[in-house]
Amino acid sequence: MPTVVEVFESRILRRNPLGDPHVRRIPVHLPPSYGTGRRRYPVITLLSGFTGSGETLLNRTAWAETVPERADRLVRSGRMAESIIVMPDCFTRYGGSQYLNSSATGRYEDHLVRELVPWVDRRFRTIPHARARAIMGKSSGGYGALVQGMRHPEVWGSVVCHSGDMYFTYCYLPDFPKCLNLLAPYRGRVERFIRAWDRMPRKSDPALHAAINTIAMAACYSPNPAVPVGFDLPFDPHTGELRPRVWRRWLALDPVNMAARHVRRLRRLRLLYLDCGTRDEFHLQYGTRMLASRLRRLGIRHVHEEFDDGHMNVQYRYDRSFALLSRALARR
Amino acid sequence: MPTVVEVFESRILRRNPLGDPHVRRIPVHLPPSYGTGRRRYPVITLLSGFTGSGETLLNRTAWAETVPERADRLVRSGRMAESIIVMPDCFTRYGGSQYLNSSATGRYEDHLVRELVPWVDRRFRTIPHARARAIMGKSSGGYGALVQGMRHPEVWGSVVCHSGDMYFTYCYLPDFPKCLNLLAPYRGRVERFIRAWDRMPRKSDPALHAAINTIAMAACYSPNPAVPVGFDLPFDPHTGELRPRVWRRWLALDPVNMAARHVRRLRRLRLLYLDCGTRDEFHLQYGTRMLASRLRRLGIRHVHEEFDDGHMNVQYRYDRSFALLSRALARR
Amino acid sequence: MPTVVEVFESRILRRNPLGDPHVRRIPVHLPPSYGTGRRRYPVITLLSGFTGSGETLLNRTAWAETVPERADRLVRSGRMAESIIVMPDCFTRYGGSQYLNSSATGRYEDHLVRELVPWVDRRFRTIPHARARAIMGKSSGGYGALVQGMRHPEVWGSVVCHSGDMYFTYCYLPDFPKCLNLLAPYRGRVERFIRAWDRMPRKSDPALHAAINTIAMAACYSPNPAVPVGFDLPFDPHTGELRPRVWRRWLALDPVNMAARHVRRLRRLRLLYLDCGTRDEFHLQYGTRMLASRLRRLGIRHVHEEFDDGHMNVQYRYDRSFALLSRALARR
Amino acid sequence: MPTVVEVFESRILRRNPLGDPHVRRIPVHLPPSYGTGRRRYPVITLLSGFTGSGETLLNRTAWAETVPERADRLVRSGRMAESIIVMPDCFTRYGGSQYLNSSATGRYEDHLVRELVPWVDRRFRTIPHARARAIMGKSSGGYGALVQGMRHPEVWGSVVCHSGDMYFTYCYLPDFPKCLNLLAPYRGRVERFIRAWDRMPRKSDPALHAAINTIAMAACYSPNPAVPVGFDLPFDPHTGELRPRVWRRWLALDPVNMAARHVRRLRRLRLLYLDCGTRDEFHLQYGTRMLASRLRRLGIRHVHEEFDDGHMNVQYRYDRSFALLSRALARR
Repeated sequence: MPTVVEVFESRILRRNPLGDPHVRRIPVHLPPSYGTGRRRYPVITLLSGFTGSGETLLNRTAWAETVPERADRLVRSGRMAESIIVMPDCFTRYGGSQYLNSSATGRYEDHLVRELVPWVDRRFRTIPHARARAIMGKSSGGYGALVQGMRHPEVWGSVVCHSGDMYFTYCYLPDFPKCLNLLAPYRGRVERFIRAWDRMPRKSDPALHAAINTIAMAACYSPNPAVPVGFDLPFDPHTGELRPRVWRRWLALDPVNMAARHVRRLRRLRLLYLDCGTRDEFHLQYGTRMLASRLRRLGIRHVHEEFDDGHMNVQYRYDRSFALLSRALARR
Repeated sequence: MPTVVEVFESRILRRNPLGDPHVRRIPVHLPPSYGTGRRRYPVITLLSGFTGSGETLLNRTAWAETVPERADRLVRSGRMAESIIVMPDCFTRYGGSQYLNSSATGRYEDHLVRELVPWVDRRFRTIPHARARAIMGKSSGGYGALVQGMRHPEVWGSVVCHSGDMYFTYCYLPDFPKCLNLLAPYRGRVERFIRAWDRMPRKSDPALHAAINTIAMAACYSPNPAVPVGFDLPFDPHTGELRPRVWRRWLALDPVNMAARHVRRLRRLRLLYLDCGTRDEFHLQYGTRMLASRLRRLGIRHVHEEFDDGHMNVQYRYDRSFALLSRALARR
Repeated sequence: MPTVVEVFESRILRRNPLGDPHVRRIPVHLPPSYGTGRRRYPVITLLSGFTGSGETLLNRTAWAETVPERADRLVRSGRMAESIIVMPDCFTRYGGSQYLNSSATGRYEDHLVRELVPWVDRRFRTIPHARARAIMGKSSGGYGALVQGMRHPEVWGSVVCHSGDMYFTYCYLPDFPKCLNLLAPYRGRVERFIRAWDRMPRKSDPALHAAINTIAMAACYSPNPAVPVGFDLPFDPHTGELRPRVWRRWLALDPVNMAARHVRRLRRLRLLYLDCGTRDEFHLQYGTRMLASRLRRLGIRHVHEEFDDGHMNVQYRYDRSFALLSRALARR
Repeated sequence: MPTVVEVFESRILRRNPLGDPHVRRIPVHLPPSYGTGRRRYPVITLLSGFTGSGETLLNRTAWAETVPERADRLVRSGRMAESIIVMPDCFTRYGGSQYLNSSATGRYEDHLVRELVPWVDRRFRTIPHARARAIMGKSSGGYGALVQGMRHPEVWGSVVCHSGDMYFTYCYLPDFPKCLNLLAPYRGRVERFIRAWDRMPRKSDPALHAAINTIAMAACYSPNPAVPVGFDLPFDPHTGELRPRVWRRWLALDPVNMAARHVRRLRRLRLLYLDCGTRDEFHLQYGTRMLASRLRRLGIRHVHEEFDDGHMNVQYRYDRSFALLSRALARR
């Protein structure tokens, strides 16, 4: 029942290229019975979306539950098995890391798998096996969960991806011309834009989203240590023309394209759950359908659901995934 | 430096008409030196905006400080005097109370002035005088601060109103036809709308704002114990025509109109600070100008500022008001 | 079948205050049999909306009929009686005249009733009686039709008002703060705004609508020969506060308020038809309902209909009104 | 000075696949001196944008000139040489033909080059040489002008492209997921959508644009006589995945990609003028820059300009192109 906010000092994130802190605050929600016995529990690692971190999952908003409140309610009503929920902080100066290693942002994938997982197993009474470990998330967190599951099935036995970033052609590319417009006053020089943005009182202005998001994704998907800013934009900053070499690097990290390269690993998962709203503002329902169709063709067991809603404020979908996970994590 | 979240059991809010909890969580931020001596400190009571509560002021968002972090930074840099910051919770089922007493929501004004202030003075080492007490807020919180200052100058010596609800003709009335549209599927019956809304998974959907906000304000400004829902809408739910009797009740609570009725009290304030962005999405800069112009005409000392921004994410304005307050609260 | 565009030299509009032309091009659509006999026909005068004129009703747009094409189709299919359709031009430099006399724009009401009607009766084989004359229009044209019908029932026997400007509190007032924002760069001086606007290459930019429309309506509803610009704005250009004296002049010309003052005249109408879409972007369905409810209370015969659509591109409603008019105009 | 609207009976458009009329109304604007002598004049063929036709260029709108009025003003002021302006009608049931031959819409390219040009030379006192013939247009009309110029330099000596469709990756592709959303209620079956749309009273609803435009472009760029609807959509209607074979057919008709295949022909042009607004809502400034940069690299003479505006209502740019054309058409 209590949520403890752990202070974790990362070795891997120390001296990361963006100067982001290597000491992170990581909320861990413990199940109701945790304090009253010696039982061991499965662990759900819950990845936040772009601009979020573990602590933002505890934010209080009107008429809504926090993640711990939701879990407690579900456990009380018998729809969810008691589990430990770990909420990592992989926020970066640009808004997020996509939970990948990148020379432009830091080694967040390693941080998750090599540091956090062992530390959680040491610090809490977990069932320290992949079969009792799930990774899940929404939006960028859903992306992260999928990629972790594809690459580290020996760590994660179950994967839940809610409204995850997918089919970059529809979810990122339409932002490129808008990003170009926002870079225009800086003559297309992204480092000038970033410098100006650093000084803005309202850095999260929705009007800037196309630029911030594109920059953040470029730092994750097309890092380039040879250039001062540390990453390549996927387009020419003046004409806007796609740079095929860079864009291909992005596409190589699109889950829709990754699936075929990770068939054997994906087959090891106990649960692979995907969902998306049919009115998703980033059109992620289409990428999710493509991935589901590829999984079907590749013979990979999965659950694919759609619901009548958009991208934002759909945490009520966790009711569904927490319930499914409870069964998957319980199986021996 | 530490922020404690106090659990306050209100006698006044017990059995409030909306069934909202009478036990509230109230963050109190203590100044850096609080733990190290016997000094007494001025108190700033910070009222949150519509849909917010004390705890939402602690929410973590990307690239932004929480209120305690902001205060700590300002104190460290010498721009703010050490103060206790109290963050009340006057949230209601409809999203807020406007910090007023209402037979439809509860006695939030009494809760603030009769319960919270004495409790803070008992529980913390405050300077228990009006001169060392400030009330401030943004949006609905700014409205609340103004009204408190007008009505209880014996309690509050200083008032800060950021982008406060004012000139209801511009800030609420344009929402009425939109509210009518949202009530239409329920045949204009507000209680049916509320019942349906209670069951919605996304109660804070921006598309519903015009209805929720109008309902909440009606519960605050035109309560009516004689009708089942507990309040009067300011318009006919079918034709939309303004109900002059109800609308006049709203206007009587518009700060722009209240000023002339509270001249003597307003003159007692040590600081009366108003600001608003010149691109406020609710057009509050106009109401704020009207109030400032009336204050000028009535010979009431005040500071009125405008800044080049909208309504959202302008917490950076607290840097300005915390600094001004520090001086006002220090004066003997 | 042919539509002739007549060139009309107005005596009344000569030397109008805005310098608009007094020679106007007025399309007149003649019924199919007009050329083949000596029959006389009823006359429908069709008033265009804000920014429109008679000729804009002939504009060709994709997948849509012009007014003459629509009438011809309806006549062919037997749903409409053969009629002469006159399409006046009461456009002004500010976008329209609301078909009123105003010292700020010109005497457009007189132009319609004293000049155009007699000229049509002289020039074409009309049935020169009120019972065979209808006035109709949409939006500002619907407003014009209503007001003409209220004031000149000896001229017009039937009135059709589609989505007409009504309940100014909802259809105009919400634009006032937006207008204030647009005037702000000109320090609130409307004459400076007008001068700058005159030089803009894109005078009809939708972003300017709130200013242009408010200015045009002020010129129609609150002319004031004593000020250089020729009219009073209904608000203080700095604080935005409503000027009650000016705003009352507007409200006196609101059809919702005019009805009670024109009961006897309204009773003389053979047809009084009102409709509006339930998703009207200017919320005119509410004003229309108020007017209908007043007409009912005053015992004035009328037809009131609603349809599931917005304000724009609803010319298909003319199929309904042309059919109703055909019956009304045929009655002896 | 007079504009005649010619009725042209096309042999080539007879029995076109969409059942569109083969008799078209084609406005021809004659220069002021045309009636007073035997002089011959250069000819400007002006192509309208998507959903437009020749006659829509004569539409009257508030505060704006029609094309003939603009030309007359420019001639009067000496900024434009007297010319004949021909305004073809290549509208189709789907909104436009892109001035291409397509088995799904009809042979509009042939209609222009093989029928209209000879007919104009026969019917009017033209200078019947490529050097005295220009083709120009805006948006889809700009696209048409470019493609005509690339393919038929023996017919057209000068080309003007205002805000032309280019770099389909930015101007069309971002609409694909929106089109998918609009097709969803019809289970992705485009023929069902078209059937429903045919019956809608408001076929030009902006909310439908992404679907109508994508369908129209598919009919132009990827016709397929083997399927009942006559064309291939560039994506799977369920998952939304791009169909690479179809998408490549589109890209082959993207001016940005066509340039390199038409170098010799483009070099023959006397004037090749491109412009675009820097705030174009369809982001066409980027495609235009790409084309200009390719032209530069290929050593093709051209003029490329940008202006501070969006995509709509920028006819004032014709003042610039008519002036440039006058010089180009005058050269021997």
